[in-house]
Amino acid sequence: MSEPNAVPAASLAQSRLTSLVSHFRTTHKHKIVVTRNLGPDVMPLLLNRPEFEVITWPEDSVCDRDWFLKTIPGASGILVMLSEKINPETLDAAGPSLKVVSTMSVGYDHCELDALAQRGVKLGHTPDVLTDAVADLSVMLALMAGRNSKETTGIVQNGQWPNFNWAPFSFCGPQLSSSSFNPTRTAGFIGFGRISQATLARLIPFGFTHCLFTGNPNSSGTSTIAAEIQAKYPSLKGVRRVSLDELAKESDVVFVLAPGGKETYHIVNEGFLRQMKKTAVLVNTSRGTLVDSDALAKALREGWLWGAGIDVVEGEPNVGLDHPLVKEPRCVVLPHIGSATNESRLGMATLAAQNLIAGVLGEPLPAELQLTK
Amino acid sequence: MSEPNAVPAASLAQSRLTSLVSHFRTTHKHKIVVTRNLGPDVMPLLLNRPEFEVITWPEDSVCDRDWFLKTIPGASGILVMLSEKINPETLDAAGPSLKVVSTMSVGYDHCELDALAQRGVKLGHTPDVLTDAVADLSVMLALMAGRNSKETTGIVQNGQWPNFNWAPFSFCGPQLSSSSFNPTRTAGFIGFGRISQATLARLIPFGFTHCLFTGNPNSSGTSTIAAEIQAKYPSLKGVRRVSLDELAKESDVVFVLAPGGKETYHIVNEGFLRQMKKTAVLVNTSRGTLVDSDALAKALREGWLWGAGIDVVEGEPNVGLDHPLVKEPRCVVLPHIGSATNESRLGMATLAAQNLIAGVLGEPLPAELQLTK
Repeated sequence: MSEPNAVPAASLAQSRLTSLVSHFRTTHKHKIVVTRNLGPDVMPLLLNRPEFEVITWPEDSVCDRDWFLKTIPGASGILVMLSEKINPETLDAAGPSLKVVSTMSVGYDHCELDALAQRGVKLGHTPDVLTDAVADLSVMLALMAGRNSKETTGIVQNGQWPNFNWAPFSFCGPQLSSSSFNPTRTAGFIGFGRISQATLARLIPFGFTHCLFTGNPNSSGTSTIAAEIQAKYPSLKGVRRVSLDELAKESDVVFVLAPGGKETYHIVNEGFLRQMKKTAVLVNTSRGTLVDSDALAKALREGWLWGAGIDVVEGEPNVGLDHPLVKEPRCVVLPHIGSATNESRLGMATLAAQNLIAGVLGEPLPAELQLTK
Repeated sequence: MSEPNAVPAASLAQSRLTSLVSHFRTTHKHKIVVTRNLGPDVMPLLLNRPEFEVITWPEDSVCDRDWFLKTIPGASGILVMLSEKINPETLDAAGPSLKVVSTMSVGYDHCELDALAQRGVKLGHTPDVLTDAVADLSVMLALMAGRNSKETTGIVQNGQWPNFNWAPFSFCGPQLSSSSFNPTRTAGFIGFGRISQATLARLIPFGFTHCLFTGNPNSSGTSTIAAEIQAKYPSLKGVRRVSLDELAKESDVVFVLAPGGKETYHIVNEGFLRQMKKTAVLVNTSRGTLVDSDALAKALREGWLWGAGIDVVEGEPNVGLDHPLVKEPRCVVLPHIGSATNESRLGMATLAAQNLIAGVLGEPLPAELQLTK
């Protein structure tokens, strides 16, 4: 008769042990909240760690704010997209266990840095891995703006090609490459960080001869950068840091590649646009807030410059059919796809996961934004 | 009384002299027929020559064939567009006075070379001056095809951006630039003339590592070209002339940049497309006849390759809404704007005028197509 009892006794002991181990494990597991499924190449980096308890927003859509706030209490780390506001409400909801916020973006306008610093929460982001993708797109938009791609692709997609009245100068715009008629080509960069420099590298074989850039007036070393660039590309006849006015007046292509924020708000305004060459094009692949959309639409309508190619618009994604730039035939508008290549997004997702893991484990983040308290 | 007579006599003599000079001038003026107004920068090159009698098609449209045939008899030179057929009918209408046909195009599919050669009429065309414009467009289309520009510009232009459901891998396609995930990038060129080489030059700073090309099997010197290219771009890890099959299999971007005609008709067919990488893109900026449109549409629909960017389509401009490639979301179609930059068209028009002048005056043409009798 002992058998029937022995089994339950052993079973009970086993159950207690399992419960203890489970309790031990649970209390030592790091709770991780991820606001978007990062796909089969990246999620295993998190899911395969036994010390992590990973909770992922289950839908294929922007993470619901209520779900987010209800899920993050007790989290050690959270991995977010540009769509999640990281503010005191978020951080208080997560509580004192939170060690790191990892955003899958290079920008951090959605994060309140003071609030993070006050609580000692680290912030990881994903710079560099998208440099080439954005530089590629910057060159693409410079070409598309000059070559009237909105008009020309429209003629085909609207079925007008068969009846189009061709003429020797149909569709013609300014050529990006240098030519016997325009042997000098000048690229102007508002902001001269990695993406600008990668864009410049791509323009060299197009015959660009001059590089102008603006920089943070408080930063040192711009003359060193100019000298380094000049040494790197001997075919350039000039590399200079200039004022915004000079950059507007002299450039054949203006690339807007500076961070967002108050200091750069509407840095490209009516005053800037009025000074541009009539044959110049403007490219914005940084943040929409740097360019005054109404001023740009007016400038294009009145021919102050030739055309524009923009990947970002102030107030995006609320950019509908009635937006003045969507209506301008000389303005190519893309829906913020600067980093949207398989390679770049895979790199960003991987780095965001690595930042999260390092932050949770108390190790140095591969790409940490330094916060000042 | 002599005075009243003297005046008419002098007047008569003057009148006779004027008539004689006029007759002399008329008989020695070269009749020139131009089928399109070339604009205020180029027309004066012809109009300011007192020995030329220039007749220009007066409309801003394709030259009427009847007007053309009625106008060219006795012409010394005719300057034409791609739209004018230069065949025995044309040459017989012009008659034995015709010394030169100058076409404002690099291509000459519209000209019957045998008929020109038999009559000893020279043919001028406009190569080289459009090399940079077409190379620019080739890079632009490679970028647009990879970055889903048809879909992404469409989302904005159709007013769908505000409600678009963003995801971490939205819009993502293959990156043109090299990356840590794809450190090797291979450009494949069908045809390896000036435009291909100018396109390759532009791709080097995008991190391209390999260059493959096909060439005319009868031409010599391809190994010399490969060695020259390798020496010019030390960052390339390989430059090789290969078979079409190998080019299809190995290339990340295939550029179709060979002449039209029977030898290259549908050189990109189903067999070629089936061998391409699923992540590769195809760019055609040469002639529509080189690519089988139905095969390409099928290939894109079934995912044999990633995307395509084409500036030329077989049967153009009869490419309407029902064309299979216009309907393909992964196929960017432009209405043959390869050379359409202000600089390039000005260069072409100027060279066409120079060819015409030289041909009429019996001087060597700046750009003459050598005809074999």
